[in-house]
Amino acid sequence: MQFAQRLDEAIRNKKSLLCVGLDTVLEKVPASLRGHDDPLFAFNKAIIAATAPWAAAYKVNTAFYEAYGLAGWRALQLTFRYLPEDVIRIADAKRGDIGNTSRMYARALFEELGADAVTVNPLMGSDSVQPFLEQEEKGVFFLCLTSNAGSADFQHFGDGREKLFERIARQVQKWNSRGNCGLVVGATHAEELGAVRALVPELPFLIPGIGAQGGDLERSVQLGTDAQGLRAVYNSSRAILYAAQGEDFAAAAGRAAQETQAALQRALQGK
Amino acid sequence: MQFAQRLDEAIRNKKSLLCVGLDTVLEKVPASLRGHDDPLFAFNKAIIAATAPWAAAYKVNTAFYEAYGLAGWRALQLTFRYLPEDVIRIADAKRGDIGNTSRMYARALFEELGADAVTVNPLMGSDSVQPFLEQEEKGVFFLCLTSNAGSADFQHFGDGREKLFERIARQVQKWNSRGNCGLVVGATHAEELGAVRALVPELPFLIPGIGAQGGDLERSVQLGTDAQGLRAVYNSSRAILYAAQGEDFAAAAGRAAQETQAALQRALQGK
Repeated sequence: MQFAQRLDEAIRNKKSLLCVGLDTVLEKVPASLRGHDDPLFAFNKAIIAATAPWAAAYKVNTAFYEAYGLAGWRALQLTFRYLPEDVIRIADAKRGDIGNTSRMYARALFEELGADAVTVNPLMGSDSVQPFLEQEEKGVFFLCLTSNAGSADFQHFGDGREKLFERIARQVQKWNSRGNCGLVVGATHAEELGAVRALVPELPFLIPGIGAQGGDLERSVQLGTDAQGLRAVYNSSRAILYAAQGEDFAAAAGRAAQETQAALQRALQGK
Repeated sequence: MQFAQRLDEAIRNKKSLLCVGLDTVLEKVPASLRGHDDPLFAFNKAIIAATAPWAAAYKVNTAFYEAYGLAGWRALQLTFRYLPEDVIRIADAKRGDIGNTSRMYARALFEELGADAVTVNPLMGSDSVQPFLEQEEKGVFFLCLTSNAGSADFQHFGDGREKLFERIARQVQKWNSRGNCGLVVGATHAEELGAVRALVPELPFLIPGIGAQGGDLERSVQLGTDAQGLRAVYNSSRAILYAAQGEDFAAAAGRAAQETQAALQRALQGK
């Protein structure tokens, strides 16, 4: 099954547009888990168990695990193995290099970790992204318009007819012969999100920025989903993971995920 | 000491513009090392010992290690620890993300691995790169104009006054307040290499593409170094690592490194 269909299926099955971001920081893991052999994984297990009923996808940010060296890489592997089968498992790694190197990154993320989808930086162009696109069931979300202030520096660079992020969206559409390409478009730019959706009506979107980064959830749902209210997942990391700092952290994360899922569904009904 | 001075010092001390790229592939490790506990590291140790007299820098491509999961990450750590003190140790990771994530990547590469310099993808803009720039002695080579064919897709996108790669070069110059910024500019584009050098006369360049990728070594040395014949290292990976496939691989790699170092010095004398 092509990735775009897999994503829609997860959204329909779970009745959710929510992606939970596992940006786990050791300093924020509750004291009771700190003595654990693998505190990052122990925290993630509890978060996944509590939030899984409300999530269509999980996005695991590789940086947060690489920062802890071998122990972090092990926690990353265990986290991927622990994620349920009925969600889309995204390795948010923002990789991209010349072809023979991208091939190794694709192996690391799709085979070693077992991710269903990855994030890729498209700056190096066509030959640098092809190794990620060989399996129709494995998705690639390309950075297009990111949720941070610095996105203005290069992504808005334009020739008067189009801006770089629009050029990226059009190019990714051309790479989509196997139905496995998507885009990262930040919720902090609701108007541009709608403009990108108009350019590529069928591409899956991974939309960060609805939680701690403060994007407008309602508008970004109405502008970011496709005509059927599908093809987009909305990521929240810190607002769910650290909903409470005490021993009730998992229950609080579950409630925050449920509330976010419900808010996303309400926004969809207003579409 | 600022990174730019550190790089110049290594080039002067070693009388070399050569960077040896450790893109080690298990399938190409000689049979005698395959039974080793850690064949990637065993191969790298032999290559480093044989090539160190001729190299000012080593560039370790993280993808090739991540592809082997935990065992690969361990080989990556051991390789960094084994590299001599008198060379610049580059983690070629092409990372870049929002600020709180880039901070974790900086920790992974500079602290966990102990790299002296990293490669960073600048697409996400100013706030995404700042965490990499906090230590003046640690260098950051930003992707500017890469050596692959796909570089034409976005890096040459322009508004008639400047192209994206020129805009990146100018922006990186602004980020260089601590003297630790550099650029990746491919040797496969000798004319553009000269154009970028003219834009940023003092930034260090990491120049891939002189080996297997077939760039013009002589012109790229004359156009890529600064007025003193410094501020640039030229990477060769496959042409050195796999100079011979048999049991004499290390000696052959040493000869290939020596020949490349000599060719780079000859090119410099023609400047």
